[in-house]
Amino acid sequence: MKKRLGPREQLYPMPAVLVVGGTMDKADAMAVAWIAIGGATPPTVMMALRRTRRTLELIHATGEFTVNTPRASQAAELDYFGITSGRSVDKFAESGLTLEPGSIVSTPIIVECPHNLECRVTREIEVGEYVIVMGEILETHAEESILDETGEKPAIENFDPLVYIPGMREYRRLGEKVADAYSIGKTIMSD
Amino acid sequence: MKKRLGPREQLYPMPAVLVVGGTMDKADAMAVAWIAIGGATPPTVMMALRRTRRTLELIHATGEFTVNTPRASQAAELDYFGITSGRSVDKFAESGLTLEPGSIVSTPIIVECPHNLECRVTREIEVGEYVIVMGEILETHAEESILDETGEKPAIENFDPLVYIPGMREYRRLGEKVADAYSIGKTIMSD
Repeated sequence: MKKRLGPREQLYPMPAVLVVGGTMDKADAMAVAWIAIGGATPPTVMMALRRTRRTLELIHATGEFTVNTPRASQAAELDYFGITSGRSVDKFAESGLTLEPGSIVSTPIIVECPHNLECRVTREIEVGEYVIVMGEILETHAEESILDETGEKPAIENFDPLVYIPGMREYRRLGEKVADAYSIGKTIMSD
Repeated sequence: MKKRLGPREQLYPMPAVLVVGGTMDKADAMAVAWIAIGGATPPTVMMALRRTRRTLELIHATGEFTVNTPRASQAAELDYFGITSGRSVDKFAESGLTLEPGSIVSTPIIVECPHNLECRVTREIEVGEYVIVMGEILETHAEESILDETGEKPAIENFDPLVYIPGMREYRRLGEKVADAYSIGKTIMSD
């Protein structure tokens, strides 16, 4: 039996990343869960931000941003960036997270986050009080300790990324493997 | 030490949902991981689909779609919808998944998926070989068995949604709770 819950901005699960705007001299960051890949030609990210965010102002100033994924052990730092405003405190000084220059864009990446994307804004779409920012992904950085044996991609056990659960408003880590994608579905195909 | 991996359309983790297009008489569905909330005023979903998808044709025909989230135990069904095309087989007949009418839109929802969103297309943006489809969320359905004790929102343990991990191309379930959001970050704030 299903129950109607009304229109809700909930989808399960959500990522939990830190989006940085600005430069090494003047940067701010915010916690973002409303973010996904927006295409592969070119590699694109899309995210919905409140229009009033200081990080968005800084993104507008340079036309660039970075997406930094924390480990599950960094839940407090991510949450802190979500509940404070860079207009009143220096989030980096207080949280202990630090910045280093990106390779391509002028916006820095977060040293302590093991996975980082450098992005350049390609388009913005206003939706009510929010702005959907699309960016081309120009570079990916990964801490070597999170890579698999090939050294070419993250092994999720090593990475242990944070996950956000809306509604309940909690952070989780990933659990056990269920199946291989592009594979388990073949068990359903008829001959 | 970080390694540069180049531009990649990867973000961790991703949801794993079935998007339905069409009507009770003629429907198709596809597996989608590139999807997120696109704003709250109004509640909006955004997703990136390949332009050539049959489900997209059906979404264009009605201007509506539904987003259906499977349980971890339905990984084979979700994967099957991702690796087959509705142009050559009847995915619903072969997978055993069934449809029921939505409450608001003409596109049906998937009975066996415990969480469903009814959406109306508000905007489309072409990005290379992909189309970003934005839709207003008009209704949410949740299986009563996944709700928490208030009956008003999903309890994630009861829900047990599927999660997709790009790169490794595997499905996982959610793991243990790490912390409460909008709360754990306060431990970092100075007085």
